[in-house]
Amino acid sequence: MKCIDNFKSIIDLYDIIFFDAFGVIKTYQGLVPGIETTFSYLAAQKKEYYIVTNDASRSPSQLADGFNRMGLKAITPDRIVSSGMLTKEYLDLKVKDGIVAYLGTVDSAHYIETSGLHTLPVSEIKSTNIDKVSALIFLDDEGFNWCDDLNKTVNILRKKTIPVIVANTDHAYPLSVHDVSIAIGGIASMIENIVGKEFIRFGKPDSQMFMFAYDLIREYRSINKKEIVMVGDTLHTDILGGNKFGLDTVLVLTGNTLPQDAETRIRATGIMPTYVCETAVAELDEFSF
Amino acid sequence: MKCIDNFKSIIDLYDIIFFDAFGVIKTYQGLVPGIETTFSYLAAQKKEYYIVTNDASRSPSQLADGFNRMGLKAITPDRIVSSGMLTKEYLDLKVKDGIVAYLGTVDSAHYIETSGLHTLPVSEIKSTNIDKVSALIFLDDEGFNWCDDLNKTVNILRKKTIPVIVANTDHAYPLSVHDVSIAIGGIASMIENIVGKEFIRFGKPDSQMFMFAYDLIREYRSINKKEIVMVGDTLHTDILGGNKFGLDTVLVLTGNTLPQDAETRIRATGIMPTYVCETAVAELDEFSF
Amino acid sequence: MKCIDNFKSIIDLYDIIFFDAFGVIKTYQGLVPGIETTFSYLAAQKKEYYIVTNDASRSPSQLADGFNRMGLKAITPDRIVSSGMLTKEYLDLKVKDGIVAYLGTVDSAHYIETSGLHTLPVSEIKSTNIDKVSALIFLDDEGFNWCDDLNKTVNILRKKTIPVIVANTDHAYPLSVHDVSIAIGGIASMIENIVGKEFIRFGKPDSQMFMFAYDLIREYRSINKKEIVMVGDTLHTDILGGNKFGLDTVLVLTGNTLPQDAETRIRATGIMPTYVCETAVAELDEFSF
Amino acid sequence: MKCIDNFKSIIDLYDIIFFDAFGVIKTYQGLVPGIETTFSYLAAQKKEYYIVTNDASRSPSQLADGFNRMGLKAITPDRIVSSGMLTKEYLDLKVKDGIVAYLGTVDSAHYIETSGLHTLPVSEIKSTNIDKVSALIFLDDEGFNWCDDLNKTVNILRKKTIPVIVANTDHAYPLSVHDVSIAIGGIASMIENIVGKEFIRFGKPDSQMFMFAYDLIREYRSINKKEIVMVGDTLHTDILGGNKFGLDTVLVLTGNTLPQDAETRIRATGIMPTYVCETAVAELDEFSF
Repeated sequence: MKCIDNFKSIIDLYDIIFFDAFGVIKTYQGLVPGIETTFSYLAAQKKEYYIVTNDASRSPSQLADGFNRMGLKAITPDRIVSSGMLTKEYLDLKVKDGIVAYLGTVDSAHYIETSGLHTLPVSEIKSTNIDKVSALIFLDDEGFNWCDDLNKTVNILRKKTIPVIVANTDHAYPLSVHDVSIAIGGIASMIENIVGKEFIRFGKPDSQMFMFAYDLIREYRSINKKEIVMVGDTLHTDILGGNKFGLDTVLVLTGNTLPQDAETRIRATGIMPTYVCETAVAELDEFSF
Repeated sequence: MKCIDNFKSIIDLYDIIFFDAFGVIKTYQGLVPGIETTFSYLAAQKKEYYIVTNDASRSPSQLADGFNRMGLKAITPDRIVSSGMLTKEYLDLKVKDGIVAYLGTVDSAHYIETSGLHTLPVSEIKSTNIDKVSALIFLDDEGFNWCDDLNKTVNILRKKTIPVIVANTDHAYPLSVHDVSIAIGGIASMIENIVGKEFIRFGKPDSQMFMFAYDLIREYRSINKKEIVMVGDTLHTDILGGNKFGLDTVLVLTGNTLPQDAETRIRATGIMPTYVCETAVAELDEFSF
Repeated sequence: MKCIDNFKSIIDLYDIIFFDAFGVIKTYQGLVPGIETTFSYLAAQKKEYYIVTNDASRSPSQLADGFNRMGLKAITPDRIVSSGMLTKEYLDLKVKDGIVAYLGTVDSAHYIETSGLHTLPVSEIKSTNIDKVSALIFLDDEGFNWCDDLNKTVNILRKKTIPVIVANTDHAYPLSVHDVSIAIGGIASMIENIVGKEFIRFGKPDSQMFMFAYDLIREYRSINKKEIVMVGDTLHTDILGGNKFGLDTVLVLTGNTLPQDAETRIRATGIMPTYVCETAVAELDEFSF
Repeated sequence: MKCIDNFKSIIDLYDIIFFDAFGVIKTYQGLVPGIETTFSYLAAQKKEYYIVTNDASRSPSQLADGFNRMGLKAITPDRIVSSGMLTKEYLDLKVKDGIVAYLGTVDSAHYIETSGLHTLPVSEIKSTNIDKVSALIFLDDEGFNWCDDLNKTVNILRKKTIPVIVANTDHAYPLSVHDVSIAIGGIASMIENIVGKEFIRFGKPDSQMFMFAYDLIREYRSINKKEIVMVGDTLHTDILGGNKFGLDTVLVLTGNTLPQDAETRIRATGIMPTYVCETAVAELDEFSF
């Protein structure tokens, strides 16, 4: 584990950079100040990048639009790998037809629709259509009535043996400097425990997220895992998952892991990043390009 | 483990009977048919009983009223030991003053109020009174807005180091033949996991429930644990808890444990009742009295 | 939570003091220096005390002998409440006859023997006597071959539905300044997970430990929980358990909880002692008596 | 979920078959009777197969030798994907130099050695070489003294922050019709819990196992996940993992899941195989070839 002053020197060592989104590129206050220079430097050096995120609440296009509106024009939808995309792939491969019931916003459901499958919020499942429900998905913590729809979900799952997918494994997410919000992954764990069934989870630290991005790259070029580095702010998801997949990893201190806690938490958890950097901002001098 | 045809022969063996309420005396359909004869027989034989229940949503008086209205006139408030009463005792002993924030109905909060302590629903905690909050209690799954108030609870607990009490350890409870409802104990576990703190739980199988009833008895008579039997429908709460406290135990098959599953579940869990009975109904013949 | 300079002022506030043994009265290096003055002061003030310990490896007599040999003459066996004594009470009440198989030393098994029950190490269970085995107890991490006897235990428990008791809930215990040892409670959890059955655990933080001591007192005098204080070095056992039972609690910093970590760990776990003291040593001046 | 009489009709539907080893191809009694015909049929139909196993105790060559000695000549080492191979890949990518301490037999350690890394049993770690230990691996439950070396492992991991790999995620494995043995995955979980650190696990149901086999195929041909089927006897590893990776799955009833329990366990766990077959034996009639 090395402490690196300037993230630029890490970019220089790898061909492809995987970034977590929240806590690395943006926070609840907007973009991490100066992060645009990182993407300029990547472009100038002809290095590639992917955003690997547990955010399943919106499609890659919507996520990219969000970055663009904040001022980060460089990010395009084809560079975003989200746990929602793995959910969509799962449905494509494993759920042939019927209704996919979901908890989340209409937006979060829209982009996972596939030919032959119809999505329907849990609130609209009735005795007349319950027979056609062939899967149930936990997509987002918004867009439904918690009390009514969570109780309804429990009872649907007690009656039907269907695959249940959790599209975001996080248990909470930050809302502001002081507040967090319960995430759909936390709610899903409560319900999994009550119904006693095994849900399918997509999201870091699970390898399947990294594999999805790795496969996107291999469609157009050959690549070795040693040429990729994963950059994240959370030891238990970004760093643990990146390490296990065989990637070098960078812990940045702009999000979940505070500068004063980094060393203690690395020692306490045993999750070791290859590097620790204050930020993912590449500080460029006049000779950088 | 013996299978006993008539619950009456068990009553004959003990001085004091502890009953679980739900699944033993009543179900979602009302009283277990014939259960009145059990209480008549207890009275005739001058045997005592206590109802030991994880229901913290109402006071002993309200719970007794409920039984009376259903037609079971024998049950008086002084015979009911609920997890809510342990919560009240905890507040008496350990929380000297301030506001006790709660999740639950107004009714559930009312009876745990003690001199010097003021209860306030989580929804009414504000920046102006948060400094006075000295404890937080999970009382009931009704009476609050799940999304707003659970998120608010998470953020209160991240900011304040106060005792948190869970007055009902169940994760779900039956609503009808087909449906269950998420209980406050399940919700509390989700939030405990998110905030990473240790909550204090009152309810079976924890010994403190049995000890509370045992102490009530010892206030007016001497008693040996061998003279008490615990009757319940749930292996993990009634039977495990009763066994651990040193009581003989009876599993009845009118609630959580179905007749066809009893043997398999006893073997799978290793939780062994002293007896298994179809019901807690004492079938009286003309010579019984 | 108040930081108290001299433990003497806490003794002055209560009638009865409960002490944890390891980390409070003794460490792996012997007695906590000066702890004798605490017991002299207790005697002078006619205050009573109990040692409440998760150590089930020896009988109360052997534990008292140990303290006496170290130079703490005041401690008598009748003042010691161990998780082994709860195990013995459980066997008395719930296991009528047969063989009690155990993992532990011969010493640890000897004192839990009761009339009618015969203890036998797991290594001596054979096809000729397995039918008589009516309970199995995890007593101590020493006295048996881990590989042979743990595998044998798993297979006995897969075949027989019998009560399984864990007489020490700790997962590890300190051996020296630098090293710990795996405790029988940790081993028991691994096996519980493999066989999928529910074991019965005795030991702090469970209320039954405190209740046992509380009942010993009530045999000869009346007492209110407000007159007792629990002194311990471990938040998750001594303080959590004492609080839940309704006692005031003192965290001392001579064992598991280091002075520099106390505040952080109290905030992180939400387990709040009534007081924090550096040690349980009563520093006496000439006017103390 | 369809019940299929003859496994041959499943082979006909897919290009590549993934098999679990234990409970599918062999049991503790030797080969599943008739399983050779399956491999003859695969060869005749020019279908490919891989053995995907959590067994890290021996190298692919040794595992293939084992099958050959039992009479299944068709299986070659290049067709075997084990959790040990993922461990070896991890070391190649992430651990540059130093000593890899291990728990297991010498054989299990030998094949994970890579250039620059030296393996050493935990028993041989001393104060003189502990500084060079750069990773620790749980390989096999045999080959070491449980009491001595597990306690030593706990203390090494408390002192050093190094990656810890668990090369077999199973908690127990069958020894005979009646007996099981504690597996290294169960031991590793106990120690992970005691030291409070996060270990890296390789083995089904984790996707990385399936990805490894999938990548081996893609080195010489293009393939779609719809053309692969995973055959296993265990719902929680083979079927859950295969499903999540997007493969069709077959539950066979020659191992962990008994014929009389299959339906109940599928409903209870919610883990749904695409097909259920009594065995993986292809019953060939004279027209099969």
